[in-house]
This record gives sequence, C-alpha cells and structure tokens, in this order.
Amino acid sequence: MAKGIPKRSEDYSRWYNEIVLRAELADYAPVKGCMVIRPYGYAVWEKMQAALDRMFKETGHSNAYFPLFIPESFMRREAEHVEGFAPQCAVVTHGGGSKLEEPLYVRPTSETIIWSMYGRWIQSHRDLPLLINQWCNIVRWEMRTRLFLRTTEFLWQEGHTAHATEEEAVQETMRMLEVYRTFAEDYMAMPVVAGLKTESEKFAGAVRTYCIEAMMQDARALQTGTSHYLGQNFAKAFDVRFQNQDGRLEYVYATSWGVSTRLIGALIMTHSDDNGLVLPPRLAPIHVVIVPIYRKQDERSAVLERASTIRNELSARWTVRLDDRENYTVGWKFNEWELKGVPLRIEIGPRDIEKKQVVLVRRDTGEKRPLPLNGLAETAARELEDIQSALYARALKFRDENTYTLDDYDDFKKRMEQPVPGFVRAHWCGSAECEAMLQEETKATIRCIPLERSEEQGACMRCGRPSRGRVFVAKAY
Amino acid sequence: MAKGIPKRSEDYSRWYNEIVLRAELADYAPVKGCMVIRPYGYAVWEKMQAALDRMFKETGHSNAYFPLFIPESFMRREAEHVEGFAPQCAVVTHGGGSKLEEPLYVRPTSETIIWSMYGRWIQSHRDLPLLINQWCNIVRWEMRTRLFLRTTEFLWQEGHTAHATEEEAVQETMRMLEVYRTFAEDYMAMPVVAGLKTESEKFAGAVRTYCIEAMMQDARALQTGTSHYLGQNFAKAFDVRFQNQDGRLEYVYATSWGVSTRLIGALIMTHSDDNGLVLPPRLAPIHVVIVPIYRKQDERSAVLERASTIRNELSARWTVRLDDRENYTVGWKFNEWELKGVPLRIEIGPRDIEKKQVVLVRRDTGEKRPLPLNGLAETAARELEDIQSALYARALKFRDENTYTLDDYDDFKKRMEQPVPGFVRAHWCGSAECEAMLQEETKATIRCIPLERSEEQGACMRCGRPSRGRVFVAKAY
Repeated sequence: MAKGIPKRSEDYSRWYNEIVLRAELADYAPVKGCMVIRPYGYAVWEKMQAALDRMFKETGHSNAYFPLFIPESFMRREAEHVEGFAPQCAVVTHGGGSKLEEPLYVRPTSETIIWSMYGRWIQSHRDLPLLINQWCNIVRWEMRTRLFLRTTEFLWQEGHTAHATEEEAVQETMRMLEVYRTFAEDYMAMPVVAGLKTESEKFAGAVRTYCIEAMMQDARALQTGTSHYLGQNFAKAFDVRFQNQDGRLEYVYATSWGVSTRLIGALIMTHSDDNGLVLPPRLAPIHVVIVPIYRKQDERSAVLERASTIRNELSARWTVRLDDRENYTVGWKFNEWELKGVPLRIEIGPRDIEKKQVVLVRRDTGEKRPLPLNGLAETAARELEDIQSALYARALKFRDENTYTLDDYDDFKKRMEQPVPGFVRAHWCGSAECEAMLQEETKATIRCIPLERSEEQGACMRCGRPSRGRVFVAKAY
Repeated sequence: MAKGIPKRSEDYSRWYNEIVLRAELADYAPVKGCMVIRPYGYAVWEKMQAALDRMFKETGHSNAYFPLFIPESFMRREAEHVEGFAPQCAVVTHGGGSKLEEPLYVRPTSETIIWSMYGRWIQSHRDLPLLINQWCNIVRWEMRTRLFLRTTEFLWQEGHTAHATEEEAVQETMRMLEVYRTFAEDYMAMPVVAGLKTESEKFAGAVRTYCIEAMMQDARALQTGTSHYLGQNFAKAFDVRFQNQDGRLEYVYATSWGVSTRLIGALIMTHSDDNGLVLPPRLAPIHVVIVPIYRKQDERSAVLERASTIRNELSARWTVRLDDRENYTVGWKFNEWELKGVPLRIEIGPRDIEKKQVVLVRRDTGEKRPLPLNGLAETAARELEDIQSALYARALKFRDENTYTLDDYDDFKKRMEQPVPGFVRAHWCGSAECEAMLQEETKATIRCIPLERSEEQGACMRCGRPSRGRVFVAKAY
C-alpha cells in the first residue's frame, strides 16, 4: 500500500482522489471546480484521443473547430436545450473593456453554434451526410465536482452529423455508440452495458439518447459515453433544409455523440488497486520500466549497459523508461512506478547478468519471475497482450458478480443500501413516475434500457404494472 | 483564375479572404470576430500540430492542460502583464445562474494560471527543468479581425518552462525559436527572419521577446511565432522558488513560446496564387488527386479500374483522393482541386491506358506532362519533394528581391509608400522615440533585430545617431 493512500475498502472516494493526485494525473486548479491535467494524465488522454480519432476517421468523420462562445439568442432557439443547459452556463458579459450587447455563453455543448453553420453549408442532398467531429474544452457550472469525473471545465470530443434521412441518422447514432463500446472494451479493458436512456435522462434537445455504462470497483455505475439521435429538432430550430433528390425541401436529420476526460476517471476506477494506478497497456504512456539494481559502483556500469541494451531493444515497439536516477533507492522506484501503473517492470542486477536473465514483474497481478534475455521482446509483447485481456476479464468478472436479477422491490432497496450496491436487472413499467419515485426512495437511477435485451414478461418491481423486459438500475456517479 | 476570386494584383486582401472561404478552410462565425475552422483548414492545422508536437517532444517537452479561466486577481500579479492583456480580455461575470464573487478572465495567454501551479510543483532543483506545452484555445478581444490572421478566438500552443539558471532558460528560449524557424522553413516552405523584438514590441511581462518574421506576397511582414525569455518576473509574481544544490532558495527562471492558427494565414499568403491555394506537400491534407477522364460509359470501368490501382499503389505513402464523382465535369474537378491546392494531379483516360501512362500536373508550376506508369510511385515521390523545395526557393527569391538596404530616410519613406513595400534593412539608434516616430510617419514598424547580423557602423536613418547594425523594418499585418 502506497504511503498515505487509504485502501479502497477503507474509503473509496478518498482513495480515488489520492491516486489522481499522487500519480500526478491531475491537480486542483485555483479556479472553482476546475482541474489541471498534469503531463502524465494528459499522456493518457493523448493515447485515448489517438485511438478514438483514428476510429472516427475510419468511419468517415473529419475534425473541425467551432467558436467557444455562443450568443444567448442561439441557445434559446431549441426550447428543451436552453432549459437543460442555460442554468449550467458560464456567461461572458464584458469584452475588450466594454459591456457586450448580447451576453455570450461559454459552450456547454455545441449543437446550437454548429447547426447555425450547417444552415449555411447544407443546401442539397449532395452536401449530405456531413460528418464532423470537434475536440475541445467545455464548461458546465457544477456544484459538486470530482477530479476527471465532474469538473466545471473538461475536455471532450463532440461529433455532429447531418443526414438526409431518419434511417441514416439512426444508423449513425448506433454506429458511434458501437465505436464507443469498442473503444471502452478494446482499449480501456472496461466492459460496458450499451443501452437507451429513459425519457427523463435523455440529452436536452434529443429524440433519443444512447449510452454506455460501466461498473466501477465500488459497484456504482458511471456513464462513459453518449450518442444522441436528435431527429429534426436542431434543423428546425436553425432552419436547416436541403433539396432532396426529388427537388423538395426537407429538414435535415441530426446526431451528436461525445466522450470526455471523464474516461480517465473511469479507467482509474475500473482497474487500479491499493498500490496505485493500473493501466491497460494500450493506454499506458509507459509500457515498461527498467530498474537497474546494483550496490557497488563497480557493478554499476555493467548493469546500466545491459539495461540500456534492453531498453533499446524494447523501444522499437514499446515506450520504455530506464530509471537510472542516482538519488532514489530501488524500493522507492518500485513504489513510484507501481503508483503510476506501468504495466511491466524489468529488474536487472549483477546476478541477472551472470545468468543471462532479467526479473519481470507484472503490475496487474504482482507476479514476479525470472526470464531469459533470449526472446525478451517477444515475451514482453505476450505479457502486455495478456495484461490487456486479463484486465478486461477481471473487470467483467467483477461486474458479473455484482449484477443481480431482482424482482422484489424490498430486495432491491436492501441491495442499494449495501456498501457495494451493484447493478440490478429489474422490471420497470416505463412510467416517469415510478422512475422518479425509485430514485427518491433508493438514490438509484435507471441507467439504461439495454440494447441486448431478451423479451421477458414481468411486473414493474415498484408498481407491479406489466413490463416486457429488464432495465439496468444502479447507484451512479 | 477561379470564378469570383480577384487576382492578387487587383485586391490582395479580398483575394486572401476569398481563398480562405472558397477553399473551405474557414468561415465567418456568427460571433463577432470569431471564425469556424472547416474540415479542410483543420486538416492543415492537424498536419502542423503533428509536426510541431513531435518536435516539442523530441526536445523533452510534455503536454498538459490548464484552466480556460483565470481569476482577475491572478492577472494583476504581474504589473506589465495585466496592463498588456487585461484590456483585451473577455470576462465571465456569471456562472450557474449567479453573479461570481470574482470575475474570471478567459485566458489571453496562460502564464499566470500556469505559474500559480508551478508554485505548488516546484520545490527543489530536482523538479527542474519543468518543460510543459499546452494546445488550447485563446481569446483576445480584437477590433479588426481577419480570418486566421487575427481573430478573437484562435487555437495555439503555448510552451511554459521553468529552469534553475538564467543561462538554461535563455538556451531554451533560443532552442524553441530555432524549432519554429525549422518548422517554418522545412514544413511550411516559408523563409523567416529570426530576431529580437524591440522593447516596445516585446511580450507584456517578458525580459526579451524573440520572433520569426515572414514576408507575405504583398511584401508585408507577418509575425509567425514568438519565444519569450521571462527572467524571474512570473516566479516573483507567484513566489516560485526552489532549493538549489547548495540548499539556498532561489527564484525560478522562465520561458514561454507559441505559434497559432495564424500560421495557416501565413501559409496561404506565402504560396497561393490566382487559381487558389498552393500547399507544400508536407502540410497538404491530400497529396495527390486522381481525376479519371472518359466520355463513353464503356470506357468508364477500364479507366476507373486503372485509377483505383494507381490510388492503391500511391496510398501506401501518400494521401490520395480518387475523384470519381459522377455529377461533376472534368474541368470542374480540375478547378476544384487547384483551388484546394493539392500538390499533384494525375489525369488518366482511355488513351493513357493504351500508352501505359498517366498525365501528371504540378499545382505549383502548372507543368503538365505524360509519365510512364512504370515507376510512378517513385516519380510522384520525387515530384513532391521537388515541389516542397521549389516553393521554398520561390518564396526566398521573392523575399530577397523585396528586401532593400537603405540608409536615407526619404528613400525609406518612398519605399513604404509603394504598393509592394518590402523589408528594409536600416540603421536605427535604438531609441523608443525614433521607433515610435518612424511608425507614425510611415506606418512601418521595426520587425526585429535579426539574430544573424553583422557588426556594421552606421547612422540611424531617422535621427542620425550612431548604430552598430541594421534592423528589419516593414509594414506588417
């Protein structure tokens, strides 16, 4: 256990904050509710960006950049949207020393400013589909903030697409949800439930909101990505029509979808342990750390030479850090790199040189074993792949063990009172009233109506009215 | 000449705006002074970012992210800084529906917020140097705006480094200036003069500001990058001290440096012509466009098949676009890709298939010639390299032809009255008064005291007092 960091079992919330601060992922900013993403945390974000950006481009999207500021009048064009977002906005009232004629909202999301431009760019069916993504900062005034999970300013990407038909826009909504699911599972090693949000939980201005929900180690849910089918709502608000192939004017169909730096919080709370971060190799800024071990100065040069050779060999494929700092003990270095979640550690000392071996330590299991120098690169590659899949398997096992199928409301309430409440698959009648009461009575929320859901006749666990399938209910971040 | 775009010789300023709009690099935003960077323009920015980011990382820097908002009190800590920047700021006065206790400035640059954090992170000489870069958006309230060149919001990178000694900080300042010079010359194919800004032109809060200055096609100067040696100014303002190796507390030495989306404007005004954009291959989003040519439908499949084969072959190394759209004429496509500045065009028709050739057209020269299919990839590679160096050579020749060495103030004034004024190498006494009067009398400014400057005794062209070397004077954007 790293010094000064509580165990997860003692205080999960404080454990999380300490991990973020100690591993130098982020720090509190001197601006209320804001954070600074430090280089190590930003390096994880860069890895996430690179993978997602490639997936967006492979599905035909281009990046662009729209203004930070949104005129107040634009926000007001879509009724549900302004109601949902205006109370959360930061507002610029002065610029260049003068009071502005019209206040500017700092973007809490960019549908309005983007659709005002789409109105200029879209005339004909030839201009469709328009598939644009933006990487940017977002501001939403939050009362209770948590590093990465909920901050007044955060970084995200927001895709905004325009289509000629409802069918195509719905397909796009689902395609991007699948991109998020794939990213979560294949890169973050984090299993997710993909599903539909209830009416009361959908995005302000959307027709339907889809999401991916992950289970954190305290068995609470975290929404980690959303994909919205917006119908013609924003096209109507900004009068964006196109001439279809028959020459008639039609409103354009829209989607939007986004993931944010919250994913870093999700990554931490899915895999890390009492010793610090545990990073899946595909998102780790450093894959392998080499710690040279020697006592006497005459051993030093031989050990460092061998360590350098290994570094050079592994660097062809991985990011490798040789920690040859003089002022730190070996034990200190072990703790440091465990705290920072580097997937593999290679130790090398004089006796390892004699035996033509190294000692390999896996961060995820702590397993420690000697390895012949011969074929080290291949072994490291295999181990890294194995860590990636082992982390996913462990997280999936945890989720499955903490997912309950319950029918009785009292059982459900008891479940939600546990310190590790878990996901509950339950029948729900579909009414907003039951949903609201359930939240009031248990602090849990309906996370989603899962996409993969078998038809099943049942009774709403709260009111007993009929239901045709189960939804996921959980306490959430 | 592309339809509706004036010739450069007719109206350079309108030509520039039309190129930006027609090539779909950017569009005016519905927010005063702001722009939208459209996908094609953003793709150029992504190319720039990738090259610069690699160079920053190779010189030891890491990326991080600091808050958009800066408390008013932070801005006030460094006297010159607040005086220089506060009048240009956008100010957030309301958040989450309430008036804020302290207004927040939208960052016009991030020295203050970053140095408030460095104060927490730096204790010992072991924490130095701290080499951080940030890619982000910036807001400066501008009265007269031009797409890319001067907009209220723009994108940039800002490096902020902390060092134990003045010597090391000065070295860093110069190293990053050289990175900018290398980027401008090797990637943008744009020659620059690197030099020191005068006292009156330096960054608010800097000890010294270095810059790179480029000549646009109308022979005006554009500042395209700056690197500041900040001394201990910000360390003192935010009380950032470190324990040196002797155990004594010392203030940290600082640098900052940045380039912005203004570079895209510089790129356009360095190379483009009356037919549209001309992009250097190393920053072109598309390197080669293939236009299939056929009249009869029975020729179509053979031509498209050959075109696809060529695309697949070239795609291994270049970004290739096969324009097989049915609804556009060949002539329209030629104009379109010329407007968009794609460096190489490959035309292929039935007779080319017979002759086992293609027709290759260079965007920079318009040169058109048949090429054997055999060895096409190698030829394309050679041509792209040649375009890159030819563009640089052409820009350098233009700059040299428009750079004058003048000693007489009347000659200088006449020069500055020309429609294509040029750079003037002139003697200047070093006084702020002569500098201010020169600007008032001629609208020209001292762009920089060049780094490469031979000692030369002379007399200030305005006042006659002695000078030991020439400075660059020009009208500037």
